[in-house]
Amino acid sequence: MYTQEELSAMIQKGIDTIEYPSLAPKLYDPVIYTLETGGKRLRPMLVLMAANLYTEELEQAIDPALGLEMYHNFTLLHDDVMDKAPDRRGRATVHVKWNDSVAILSGDAMQALAYQLIGKTPDHAFRPVMDLFTTTNIEIGEGQQLDMEFETRNDVTIPEYIEMIRLKTSVLVGCALKMGALIAGAPAEEAQVLYDFGTNIGLAFQLQDDWLDCWGDPKTFGKRIGGDILCNKKTFLRITAEKNAPMPQTDGMSEEEKIETVKAYYIQSGAEKACKEAIAHYHQLGMEALKKLPFDDEKLIHLKAFAAKLENRKI
Amino acid sequence: MYTQEELSAMIQKGIDTIEYPSLAPKLYDPVIYTLETGGKRLRPMLVLMAANLYTEELEQAIDPALGLEMYHNFTLLHDDVMDKAPDRRGRATVHVKWNDSVAILSGDAMQALAYQLIGKTPDHAFRPVMDLFTTTNIEIGEGQQLDMEFETRNDVTIPEYIEMIRLKTSVLVGCALKMGALIAGAPAEEAQVLYDFGTNIGLAFQLQDDWLDCWGDPKTFGKRIGGDILCNKKTFLRITAEKNAPMPQTDGMSEEEKIETVKAYYIQSGAEKACKEAIAHYHQLGMEALKKLPFDDEKLIHLKAFAAKLENRKI
Repeated sequence: MYTQEELSAMIQKGIDTIEYPSLAPKLYDPVIYTLETGGKRLRPMLVLMAANLYTEELEQAIDPALGLEMYHNFTLLHDDVMDKAPDRRGRATVHVKWNDSVAILSGDAMQALAYQLIGKTPDHAFRPVMDLFTTTNIEIGEGQQLDMEFETRNDVTIPEYIEMIRLKTSVLVGCALKMGALIAGAPAEEAQVLYDFGTNIGLAFQLQDDWLDCWGDPKTFGKRIGGDILCNKKTFLRITAEKNAPMPQTDGMSEEEKIETVKAYYIQSGAEKACKEAIAHYHQLGMEALKKLPFDDEKLIHLKAFAAKLENRKI
Repeated sequence: MYTQEELSAMIQKGIDTIEYPSLAPKLYDPVIYTLETGGKRLRPMLVLMAANLYTEELEQAIDPALGLEMYHNFTLLHDDVMDKAPDRRGRATVHVKWNDSVAILSGDAMQALAYQLIGKTPDHAFRPVMDLFTTTNIEIGEGQQLDMEFETRNDVTIPEYIEMIRLKTSVLVGCALKMGALIAGAPAEEAQVLYDFGTNIGLAFQLQDDWLDCWGDPKTFGKRIGGDILCNKKTFLRITAEKNAPMPQTDGMSEEEKIETVKAYYIQSGAEKACKEAIAHYHQLGMEALKKLPFDDEKLIHLKAFAAKLENRKI
């Protein structure tokens, strides 16, 4: 079994050696720029971790793993155009460094390149992997659509919110694990168990992001604490709180006052507690899925560490 | 063998009955709007025409044919955002009727839906069809990139221009025919001959578009005569003329004067003649490819009519 460091090195080497077609090289400058800004490489890591449960031969899983990283970065690139976001991971976004047209076209190329990389899946898993990826691709677009619609709706329910984050974020985590398992020749039921583990952990991860926006450590969270509150984002906390008690008046308050007032409201209304319970719930569902796999704790060490890292983010 | 009308009806019925996922129905409103504006449905027709050379069972070719129509409309939708085009086929473009974000996201969804439809290719042709489509998808992005780069370059050569229109337009024509043939179980070499026919006819078609911009019939051309001249587009005519003689001074002229002056320049410089010769050359290459197929004229009637329609556009 490979260590996390070894898997990470395989991915970095893979990214550094992606071969871009050379007929219109400038098309790929924003693609290379986007990929070299780093990020956690979470999705390709999950592909390799799942594959490594079944085989030591990870070579055939690397291109598909890179394809998911390419795909994820395509969604971020186009999201940034739609949100008019000025920066990402500390660097200017593509539409700022170049322009909107370049960002649209290079993003489209990244979706195509993702299919090219995932399309290197070996024959025995080709059809199920392509079907899984396309289904996931469509679901993620639907999640983004719902997220945009929720901005102008005042009646979003918790089940609707959970469904939105499931589509926008969690299905890709599940897809990564299932894809790795399928490429490594896992039985279909076990690949599905890994998918369920991934989507549940993905939901817990996203809900914790809502929680950390209020109570995270500014040093490790990476985003401004209270950002969701200031832009009136409909998070799990906000939707739950408003169901229980009216939102306090914050007009005329300073930003810091508004953040403190709303955080207190989230605690008093029970939303903070409900959020922690929901995180624990989906985390638990994920861990239960994992128990269905015919592997001991040692074999599952990376996946458990991945789930545990989530828990540690709270501190 | 089916008639053109029967094939056309199959495609229309297929478009009318595409099943869109229902989790975020509004995501598909711009998709349906784009597809219902019509167009010639040229690419799906070519898929079915090629398949029909080998089988009367066209059922399994219909979804992949619709996938190419979906894909083509995705490229038009995103091109219109990049070009800030106000209308397409007589209706407001998606980014005007909705907004840029909706156009970007629904276009992305159309690329994903194209993969879903083409992903219904039967097992025997699945891998070659997916590989062909992804390669074509990447080439078209490269063609669009080169087209954008050419706008700010003054040293574009004819071979570069031909390569750009090959990537931007012709490869999809070839892809449609080869895809239909592969799905219908054609031998690989014959599928490739159809691809070569398609790309050459596609090049002739695009070069004729340059010619028709100057000398087409305004009633049938569908675009304003002289449009390329007024926006100083680097067409085959312009590049060839400038190689042979300096462009006349047109500052201060009315639009009509400029169009007439440049048209005269294209004729005097020999560019008009060279353009007609290039059209005939690629048309001829296409017809020669067709001769390599083991079919008589009657069997090839639709493909020959398709190539001939091109010739008739001149009149």
